[in-house]
Amino acid sequence: MNERTAGSGRAGRRPGGPDTRGEILGAARKAFADKGFSSTSIRAVAREAGVDAALVHHYFDSKDELFIEAMAIPVDPRQIAAEILDGPREEIGRRIATVFLGIWESPEGQQRMKAIFRSVVTSDEVARLMREGITQMIIQPISRTLDVPDAHLRVSLAATQLIGAAMARYLVGLEPVASVDLATLIDRLAPVLQLHLTG
Amino acid sequence: MNERTAGSGRAGRRPGGPDTRGEILGAARKAFADKGFSSTSIRAVAREAGVDAALVHHYFDSKDELFIEAMAIPVDPRQIAAEILDGPREEIGRRIATVFLGIWESPEGQQRMKAIFRSVVTSDEVARLMREGITQMIIQPISRTLDVPDAHLRVSLAATQLIGAAMARYLVGLEPVASVDLATLIDRLAPVLQLHLTG
Repeated sequence: MNERTAGSGRAGRRPGGPDTRGEILGAARKAFADKGFSSTSIRAVAREAGVDAALVHHYFDSKDELFIEAMAIPVDPRQIAAEILDGPREEIGRRIATVFLGIWESPEGQQRMKAIFRSVVTSDEVARLMREGITQMIIQPISRTLDVPDAHLRVSLAATQLIGAAMARYLVGLEPVASVDLATLIDRLAPVLQLHLTG
Repeated sequence: MNERTAGSGRAGRRPGGPDTRGEILGAARKAFADKGFSSTSIRAVAREAGVDAALVHHYFDSKDELFIEAMAIPVDPRQIAAEILDGPREEIGRRIATVFLGIWESPEGQQRMKAIFRSVVTSDEVARLMREGITQMIIQPISRTLDVPDAHLRVSLAATQLIGAAMARYLVGLEPVASVDLATLIDRLAPVLQLHLTG
């Protein structure tokens, strides 16, 4: 992400005002909310922001990146998917638990993830957006690589276990899940996730 | 729950006005929110409502029942715990999935459970109350009966799987978990829950 401050504060079809990046993100949030993830194009976001598509591309490499930034997702889901897939298949359950809980265990990650969870649960629009984005950027790549029958269902079910564990530990404070040490939690979730994925 | 309309509309220490039951529930919600589940007594709720403790007992058999009604929980958690425990131990995972998803599959149950989930995620106070109530009425009885090491952790982890499955299917609409038929979902969750509980 290359931040750049350029140009004047002129209105209209700006070549790049002082907060062009922020304005593009605002336009992206609106476009994603109106049309969903799949139907939103870089061009449509540029139109919404009143700038050239080339300028959107200058700030954001892809629609995925625009989505990640617009939704304030604390990690790059594509990198998460790559990390999860990198290693022996019989340990994928452990890698998923480690990577996912690792995001939540960092204070900033936890704060952002909580905000995302709260928005998803209280807004149908955010729920639709997040499930589309996460499906395309994490669940589908892992499903394609997993090479098992019902891969998509399996990966989604593993996601439900992660969602529930995060809810209980970080949002609801359900004991003893909330205060058990991370290594124990990973030890308990790993075989369950493995069963979902390859069992 | 014996609903009864009695007495006049007099203020003060009422022996039972036209909506005494509703007023007791309101007082209970306030008392539970202020003090938590454990520290709230029937006497405290009566004091809050400005009625005799005997009158609270007239409408509600126990503090548990008062909590269930005050929080609009669509089922009796104590009965849920009993249903889950009634049957062979090696099928407890399947019974939990069946009973829990059964609540969500009924339109009224789903509406109420969604409201509870939304409140839990957006209010720390409701989260604290629900985790206390659910721990005491469901998780602890099942843990005590299960007779395995770490029973409490195991039952709580099973709860995380259920929470996540409900979130994905009913609140977020994550596919294919959202639209897969109920029997398939139960088939997939049963062995995972069993692994959490007795594996």
